[in-house]
Amino acid sequence: MNHVNVAIAGLGTVGVGTIDILQRQYNKIQDKLGVSLQIVAVCARSKRDRGIDLSGYDYVEDVLSLATREDVDIFVELIGGADGIALQATKLALAHGKHVVTANKAMIAEHGFELASLAEKNGVNLRFEAAVAGGIPILKVLQEGLIGNEVRKISGILNGTCNYILSAMSEESTEFSVMLQRAQDAGYAEADPSFDIDGIDAAHKIAILAALAFGTKPNFAAVSVSGIRDICIDDINYARELGFRVKLLAVAEMVNEKLQQRVSLALVPADEPLAAVDDVFNAVLVDAQPVGHVMIDGRGAGAGPTGSAVVADIADVARGAKLPVFGKPSQHLREALEVGEDIGTGAFYVRLLVRDEPGVLAAITKIFAENHISIDSVIQKNRAPGEYVPLVLLTHEASRVALFKVTNKIAEQSVVLEQPVVMEIQRP
Amino acid sequence: MNHVNVAIAGLGTVGVGTIDILQRQYNKIQDKLGVSLQIVAVCARSKRDRGIDLSGYDYVEDVLSLATREDVDIFVELIGGADGIALQATKLALAHGKHVVTANKAMIAEHGFELASLAEKNGVNLRFEAAVAGGIPILKVLQEGLIGNEVRKISGILNGTCNYILSAMSEESTEFSVMLQRAQDAGYAEADPSFDIDGIDAAHKIAILAALAFGTKPNFAAVSVSGIRDICIDDINYARELGFRVKLLAVAEMVNEKLQQRVSLALVPADEPLAAVDDVFNAVLVDAQPVGHVMIDGRGAGAGPTGSAVVADIADVARGAKLPVFGKPSQHLREALEVGEDIGTGAFYVRLLVRDEPGVLAAITKIFAENHISIDSVIQKNRAPGEYVPLVLLTHEASRVALFKVTNKIAEQSVVLEQPVVMEIQRP
Repeated sequence: MNHVNVAIAGLGTVGVGTIDILQRQYNKIQDKLGVSLQIVAVCARSKRDRGIDLSGYDYVEDVLSLATREDVDIFVELIGGADGIALQATKLALAHGKHVVTANKAMIAEHGFELASLAEKNGVNLRFEAAVAGGIPILKVLQEGLIGNEVRKISGILNGTCNYILSAMSEESTEFSVMLQRAQDAGYAEADPSFDIDGIDAAHKIAILAALAFGTKPNFAAVSVSGIRDICIDDINYARELGFRVKLLAVAEMVNEKLQQRVSLALVPADEPLAAVDDVFNAVLVDAQPVGHVMIDGRGAGAGPTGSAVVADIADVARGAKLPVFGKPSQHLREALEVGEDIGTGAFYVRLLVRDEPGVLAAITKIFAENHISIDSVIQKNRAPGEYVPLVLLTHEASRVALFKVTNKIAEQSVVLEQPVVMEIQRP
Repeated sequence: MNHVNVAIAGLGTVGVGTIDILQRQYNKIQDKLGVSLQIVAVCARSKRDRGIDLSGYDYVEDVLSLATREDVDIFVELIGGADGIALQATKLALAHGKHVVTANKAMIAEHGFELASLAEKNGVNLRFEAAVAGGIPILKVLQEGLIGNEVRKISGILNGTCNYILSAMSEESTEFSVMLQRAQDAGYAEADPSFDIDGIDAAHKIAILAALAFGTKPNFAAVSVSGIRDICIDDINYARELGFRVKLLAVAEMVNEKLQQRVSLALVPADEPLAAVDDVFNAVLVDAQPVGHVMIDGRGAGAGPTGSAVVADIADVARGAKLPVFGKPSQHLREALEVGEDIGTGAFYVRLLVRDEPGVLAAITKIFAENHISIDSVIQKNRAPGEYVPLVLLTHEASRVALFKVTNKIAEQSVVLEQPVVMEIQRP
């Protein structure tokens, strides 16, 4: 039987989760792979007790020496951070002919192409299932399970923190700030939550998915990103009344042969499977030809789910699986022509604050009509003559450019208070 | 570049779908695999026009000679049927050192162990992603993506015909017979629909999933099977009022270290992702440790989705992937100790027809109480003193044995008409 030696760099939640699985499932995995998977060394900043037995492994202080260690076949990078020591160690390991498995979405989204080229040059694997959607094997599904398909669009709920907050707001009709605090208390959000709630984390993940799905170089910088910080409970409630749930969706799609990547709040019809993905769960909906829609959901974070994905990558590498890092040889990856959020068409939720007086609705709907956007439904909430009241409109499919024009025009009207709230309606 | 030669046996829907994908995606797949995949020969009963160009391939009349052809690396069996020529050709191909890819669920469910042993003996692959849930790469997810996990339970909506009928009945509050006719008119059900609506098809699939998930020999004969033929629209409507959807669920789980496999109608809470899987869509929910719940849904049948799965298997074999047929070497597959439907616990929907007279509810609930089953809720539908009216009860978690005892006892009561309708409530 073959022996494959593994080094684990980083003993945080994911590192400990990974080691725990490799220890518990040692015999089973060996039976399934026909390979003996041995952890030989680990590395972390401090040597404190982490609740698992590390006594059988060498403890190495210097990550870079771990990355180049003679007896290591697979270097598992679980340190994190787009740059710095994680990137340095990964490059060194690849250059020294080690396979690399990582959960580092920022590093792959921002340096994926360079790393893929380096891996190919050295004839080794670079795998990162755990970087996107935790326990959900979405990269394997895209790259292998759907290999005969042409992907048209990917839509994901990719950040568990945001989904937890939005689900809880919707469930209890409570404001964002309250639920953010609760997420922090529950350990679902960091003390500084901006990475999650401003959409950066989801943007890293959709950049990786887009590269794999469309055969393009990962381009995190081109993702149009907005988060959930400004979500108002009223909009969640209005959406609910209209038969929708509000989700932070990460979307990558080809629009006129150009790639569009965006992270933004969106309305999902309540009877769609994506709408039922609540709490810290993640989900990815793939629209591809000829398979149609495939959706997969599961836990997006945590020691168990993320460790599960790291172990799957280690197992694939150990049994000799070899696939191009982003699905095809990196020199064949295209530079995607990236388009902004204003290209293509969509249906929209638009919420205004308007003065409750005769003729306002006529004036507003006229602006839509002049820009050839037809209205699906209009709801005026409350009544307060002379005061400002919410006016909610749902549009039919319309050009994004036209919609932006309309909302800008509307914002200029004297009867309208504040910038309109706009969210795309995501139908499958 | 390596050349891999493929033979396609069977030019029905799936065969044509497979060839269509291999033709359209030829360059892309070659780029992704680094292998040139060439169809060399096809085989079917008649040579009629099938809407695709077959002129580049040898047309072979005899399946068995195709299975043993010198220049064939991968033999793709798309003929169907558990036994007969499909089985004969598959065995012959394996014995002649050809890899086999098949969509034949009946053959794998009933002869999987024998075929797996034969494949191993000859050092070739036997793959059947398309046999379960069409375009959904659930076998790959289970076998590779979740390799580090211990599966506890698998629940699937595995028959598109049944799901179409049940969804449409629920949507339109219409009887089974009407919707079966519509499914037949739409081409979703055969003229003789018994294979689908009596649960046999779903049973084949769950037997395959169980083998992969639990490392046991596939045992189709041990699946407890019931179908949807007797479903009454009233029960779908009552379930809906109570916040549930009725689905034909195929379930495999370990109960006290013994395998339970069943196909039966079940109630799924309306806010669960499984409940939103409508129409001809299939879905599989995996409950595993440490990943938690992973659900995947998509189209379970049709040229595109099933062809997509066949192509994924061909691609894996072509790039040299090698995995034991049922996840581990076949001599390590356990004989599962199979238990019947009456083992373990569950929560249940029970609907009776009772005479509407004082004391009936007390008499019925006393029978539950005597068997230590506590009632979650009771709804008496309609009022018609002296006549028979429906009485719907939902139980809390209870032993299956006790529940069967209770329903038998209830059926004997003079105030009760007909055998009670019992469906399990499936909570995640």
